[in-house]
This record gives sequence, C-alpha cells and structure tokens, in this order.
Amino acid sequence: MKKKIITLLTDFGTRDGYIGAVKGVIKRINPQAEIVDVTHEVESYDVLGAAFALDNSYRYFPEGTIHLAVVDPGVGSLRQPILIRTKDFFFVGPDNGIFSFVYRRQDLTDVVVISNKKYFLAELSRTFHARDIFAPVAAYLSLGVETDEFGSPAKECMKLIIPEPESKGKSLKGAVIHIDRFGNLITNVTAALLRKKKNADIVVGKRRKKGVSRSYFEIQERKLGTLVGSSGFLELAVNQGSAQVLSKAKVGEGIKIDFE
Amino acid sequence: MKKKIITLLTDFGTRDGYIGAVKGVIKRINPQAEIVDVTHEVESYDVLGAAFALDNSYRYFPEGTIHLAVVDPGVGSLRQPILIRTKDFFFVGPDNGIFSFVYRRQDLTDVVVISNKKYFLAELSRTFHARDIFAPVAAYLSLGVETDEFGSPAKECMKLIIPEPESKGKSLKGAVIHIDRFGNLITNVTAALLRKKKNADIVVGKRRKKGVSRSYFEIQERKLGTLVGSSGFLELAVNQGSAQVLSKAKVGEGIKIDFE
Amino acid sequence: MKKKIITLLTDFGTRDGYIGAVKGVIKRINPQAEIVDVTHEVESYDVLGAAFALDNSYRYFPEGTIHLAVVDPGVGSLRQPILIRTKDFFFVGPDNGIFSFVYRRQDLTDVVVISNKKYFLAELSRTFHARDIFAPVAAYLSLGVETDEFGSPAKECMKLIIPEPESKGKSLKGAVIHIDRFGNLITNVTAALLRKKKNADIVVGKRRKKGVSRSYFEIQERKLGTLVGSSGFLELAVNQGSAQVLSKAKVGEGIKIDFE
Repeated sequence: MKKKIITLLTDFGTRDGYIGAVKGVIKRINPQAEIVDVTHEVESYDVLGAAFALDNSYRYFPEGTIHLAVVDPGVGSLRQPILIRTKDFFFVGPDNGIFSFVYRRQDLTDVVVISNKKYFLAELSRTFHARDIFAPVAAYLSLGVETDEFGSPAKECMKLIIPEPESKGKSLKGAVIHIDRFGNLITNVTAALLRKKKNADIVVGKRRKKGVSRSYFEIQERKLGTLVGSSGFLELAVNQGSAQVLSKAKVGEGIKIDFE
Repeated sequence: MKKKIITLLTDFGTRDGYIGAVKGVIKRINPQAEIVDVTHEVESYDVLGAAFALDNSYRYFPEGTIHLAVVDPGVGSLRQPILIRTKDFFFVGPDNGIFSFVYRRQDLTDVVVISNKKYFLAELSRTFHARDIFAPVAAYLSLGVETDEFGSPAKECMKLIIPEPESKGKSLKGAVIHIDRFGNLITNVTAALLRKKKNADIVVGKRRKKGVSRSYFEIQERKLGTLVGSSGFLELAVNQGSAQVLSKAKVGEGIKIDFE
Repeated sequence: MKKKIITLLTDFGTRDGYIGAVKGVIKRINPQAEIVDVTHEVESYDVLGAAFALDNSYRYFPEGTIHLAVVDPGVGSLRQPILIRTKDFFFVGPDNGIFSFVYRRQDLTDVVVISNKKYFLAELSRTFHARDIFAPVAAYLSLGVETDEFGSPAKECMKLIIPEPESKGKSLKGAVIHIDRFGNLITNVTAALLRKKKNADIVVGKRRKKGVSRSYFEIQERKLGTLVGSSGFLELAVNQGSAQVLSKAKVGEGIKIDFE
C-alpha cells in the first residue's frame, strides 16, 4: 500500500501531550500513514501566523499529501470543520481563515464541511477537535475515503483579510504581515510588484533604505536592510541580527516604497 | 516484519543533541522502529508534568506501542530503571512516579526492574540513561524481546502523591494539578465527580464562577471560566487568553466547588 | 529499496514553516527517505552550538545516515555548500565550521564543494539554501547518487577554533564551550585528560570544588559540582538546578584544574 503523508501544523506546543494524542489517533486508524511535524509552535491563537507557515511549507510536499492545520480559537463555536481538496493536496482544519493563502494560490477542487460522525472519535469533546475530528478525518482520508463521504459541499469559506499593497503615484504602501523567528519583517509586497518598478527606496518609520539587497549577507551589519525573502515577499532584515528588535515594528506596521 | 512505534516523552529539549542520540540508538538497534515525538519540552525535572502529558497521549496509540518517558532528576541514584507492560502498551523509563497515571488507569501485566546489561549500550554513563539504557531497551522490546528478559519482576513501583478531591457537605475541595501551554488550569476534579452533583459554583481565590461552560468559546472574553477539558478534568480557562496570567494560580492552588 | 535516514539539525525553529519546506523537498525527491529531527532550536547563528549538538548525536545513528546540519549566518555569501563523506556517514551543510567536531573524530573519505545545479531546486534563492540546495542534495544522496556527482573535491574545509586545554605544571586551564538546556557548563576538558591525573580541584571564578562526582545525584543540592558528562567532557553542574544561573558563567569562561 502506498504510504500517505500527513503533515501537522498547530499552536499546541508539545509539552502537554495534546499533539501526542493527535498522532496516536492517526496511527491507530492508519498505521501506514507517515506523520511529518511542520510546527506546533505557532503563537497561541495566531491564525494568520499559521496561514503564513502553511504557505511556506505545504507546496513542497509530494502530491496527495494531507495537511492538517489547527489553530482554533473558536473550537466549540459555530465555526465549521472543513476539508479542502486542491489539484495536488488535501487540507483539514477549522474554517477560520487558516487556509487563506491556499485559496489564493491553489485551484480548489472540493470544499466540504465535515459533518459525518462516522469518521469522528466516538467520544467527541467540545474543546479538542484536532484529536476528535481533524485527526481521524485526515487518517481516513489517507486510507482513501472520498472527500464527499465526510460531509456536504461548502458554499463559501472564510478568508482572512490580508491587506493588499496600495499603489499611489511613484509610491507603494505595504505592511508587515509576519515576523519570523529571526526577527525578519515580512511584508505583503511581492517580488513581482518590485520587479516592475526601479530603484526602490524603502521607508519604515523614520528609516529610509536605498535599494534592495540580494542576500542577508549583503546587508550592512547592525543596519536595517531589505531583500526578497524565500517566501517571495519583500522583507526587512538585519544581517545576523533582528529587524524586529532594531525597528520595534509589529505585524501591521506600514512601509512605503518610493520608486524613481 | 511489523513496524513498531516507539514514542518519546522527555524534558531534554532538543537543542543539545541529546534526544538525537536517543533516536540514533533506537534506529541502530531496530531500523524498522517508528519513532514518534510526543514532547521534549516538559519543564526540567517536572515528573508530574511528564506524567500528565503521558496520560494525555499514550492511550490513543495503537496496541503494542512502546512509550519511552524520561524525566529523570535522580539519574545515577538508586532509583530503578523500569519496564511496565499493560494489556495494550509497554512503558520504559525511571521508576520515579512518571507512570503514576498509568498505574491508575491500566491493568499492569508485568513490572520489571531493568538490569540485564546485555540490552544496554556497551559504554554506560551515569548521567544519560535515556541513551544508554532506556533507548536500547525500548528498541530491543520493539524487536520482540520478552519483558522478563530485561530483569526481575518488581515488587512495587513508585507513585506520585497526586492529591484527591475532598468532599465536605455540599462542597468539594480540589487543586490545580497542571497548567498547560494555553494557561488553562487543570484540576484533579473529574467529569464524573461533577456530573453527580448539580449547579456547581467554582471558587478560586476571591473569584466565584457560576456554572460550567461546555467550550472555551462559551466563556466570556477576558473572564475566568470553567469547563471539563479534553483530559476529562475540570479546567479553569479564559477564552483566547490565559487563566494562569489572570488568576496568578500555580500548581497546587486549591479550588472549591459549591453545589446546590 | 533500503530506507535511508536523513537527520535534520538547524536554528530555524519550526513556527514559520521553513523547516516544513525542507522536509517537503526531501520527501518529494525521495518518498522513501526517513526524516529524523535532531533539533531546530539551536540558538540563532550559533555555529559552535550546532557543531556540539551534532557531535552529541550523529555517531549513534546507523551507518549510511545522512546528516543535514544548517546554521548558516553566511547564506548568500562566498561560503561554500559542502558535502562530507566519512567511513560511516554523510554530512551536508554550509562550510562554516559546523562540522568541526566531525573533522576531529572521523576519518574523512570525501569532501566535495557542492556545485552541480542539477541537484538543486529549479528556483534557487539566495536566502534559503537549506531548502534549495542542502535538502535536495541530501535527498539525492539518499537515492544513491555518488558524492562526486555533486561537485568538485575540496582542498580544505573550515574548522572553528575551539580552544584546547593548556597544561601548566600541576594545573590545567580549560574553558566552557557549551551550556546545555539544563544549565550544565560543558568544558573542553576530556575525560581522558582527567583520568591521567589525580584528585582534581576545579576552580571557576571564586569557587573551588574538590573532586569530581560520578552523577548529578551525587552533587550537593544547590551547590556547584563537577562530573564527566555524557559527551565525555568535564561539566560543571548543579543537582536539579542550573550551573549557569548559579555561576553566571558564559561560553568562553575559563576554568582551572589543580591536581595533587
């Protein structure tokens, strides 16, 4: 039998054993499933951070990979458990915007509101759907159960409002949408947007930075620099240091790009 | 050959490479063993926290799973290395109370004090039994070595003194036994105890909370609420916040439940 | 087909999804490869810490294991991507000293500067060589591609200057080279050096400690003690506490050993 990969992406941490339960549930239903940890260290309740981490990772996996992503502040509320099938992948998790970048980038084949209790754990809690709903659904998916077996097609699904850069004359206004572990400030300005224009000056707060570097190494030490990062977005970065610490910027901070 | 799962639960963190050594030892003895990380982020030396994380996870794994659990402040002392077999699982680790919840919940088939050096690493340290004793024992177990091969039956084994709730008239006195990553305060009061009574008022310090919610979402934002958590214990929680931060409670903090 | 192990050791953390991308790349090229996390929690840019964690773990894995180790402050600079083959293992990563302990301990068979773009991701970034170069190279290695296929033999490779202990009369001067998660101060003084001499007095700052204990447990509680740790180096440790917190020592801190 072909081995199926199930990736896990959560804000559970590991120390309480919750994610251990999720893994156990999967292995009990499909001992052949291969579990790959993406992360359990998303900031608690940070749905956008989870969406971003998912966007950084899911595309690189083999076709047919099942991505389980659960940052779920609304567990037990009316938010729906959802299953998405795209050309290449499956996604399972809460319908709270965690799949926002998936919607942008992938052609959706099926979107299903998960409701068939046949594929849930027998004892269903209101506080731990990752263990009781999402893990068994992912495991049954990996056994080949068809997506429409899990529930009814969804009319629409939730998308986070991720701010788009605004163009105004020779300027472009963007915003920081994620800060990574190294303190790099990742903005919503794509490489494509930059390439169209020339000689960008980037302004954050009172700092103005001329030109875009090609690697962290090209940035002067202890100075704020800019480059297009590995996710394809414009980043503010410090060579071997933290742009977050240097600039005190937070997610949502505006940046301005002046072109020639 | 059937693939055996070995789960790992420690307080080693990962950054020093210690847990890498444990994994290497297992794979060298049994390349077919499947290693599943439960956690390496138990608070240093927190045996009760480890026991709790183990209780949250081990039951969900397939029958025959070998659970390696090592939080071991007494390594190199007289505390014994121990191997437990229950109806469904194997447990390997120090006899220091880390298996306290296992003893409560599972029927023990065998308890063995590990002593057969044939199954240890050749070079045995006094500081790293997870690598030198527990990992190889788990790996040989996964190869099918019988439990009585590893040592002699144990007369008794260590149990942590986990406080039991005390009933007094219309009140029940319990205590916080674990605080999880989200700041939820998990008490020793089981769902069964609550179900028997009606209309519980829960008192922590100077706060009194009427009734028990069914999900985090039902709790008012920024207010302390209560619910029965996914582990089956009464929890104090804050919707999208930390009950620990709000209440300043610690493990051991008393709570009182007044019934109608 | 024989399953090959690829271990991962980085300073990426997990929460941004970067390491997820690395895992995906590997599994897409070789679905049979078995990925084992050693750590992603090396201190950012701490090449020596990574070298130490690698030294603690790689030797325990089965022969043929491929070790991917990436702490890479110089990504995008002239530092070379490197592939090392020793009698038992393969190592892939930046040539920045991360393999310093490997050079010391293992007989090198091949050292190759990785340059063959056939084995890189098609879209090559200047900021994320772990995903774009090291992961695919490790995956192709696991498929059996020969080492000389990846590039040209290297003349020499970078070694970190790790201070050696200095002997002077009846004294030995060493230094702290790593501080582990438990706060143990690990020095560059090997067990072999200690064994040659007798009755060591160990001096750190103003503290003098008579004799070397055999386990953490033998050390007096809340006192600084010494022992030979599981890595084979002299350690300063506190029983169930942190020697780092007690002594305020940092990496580089000198220690002195007075023999009889």
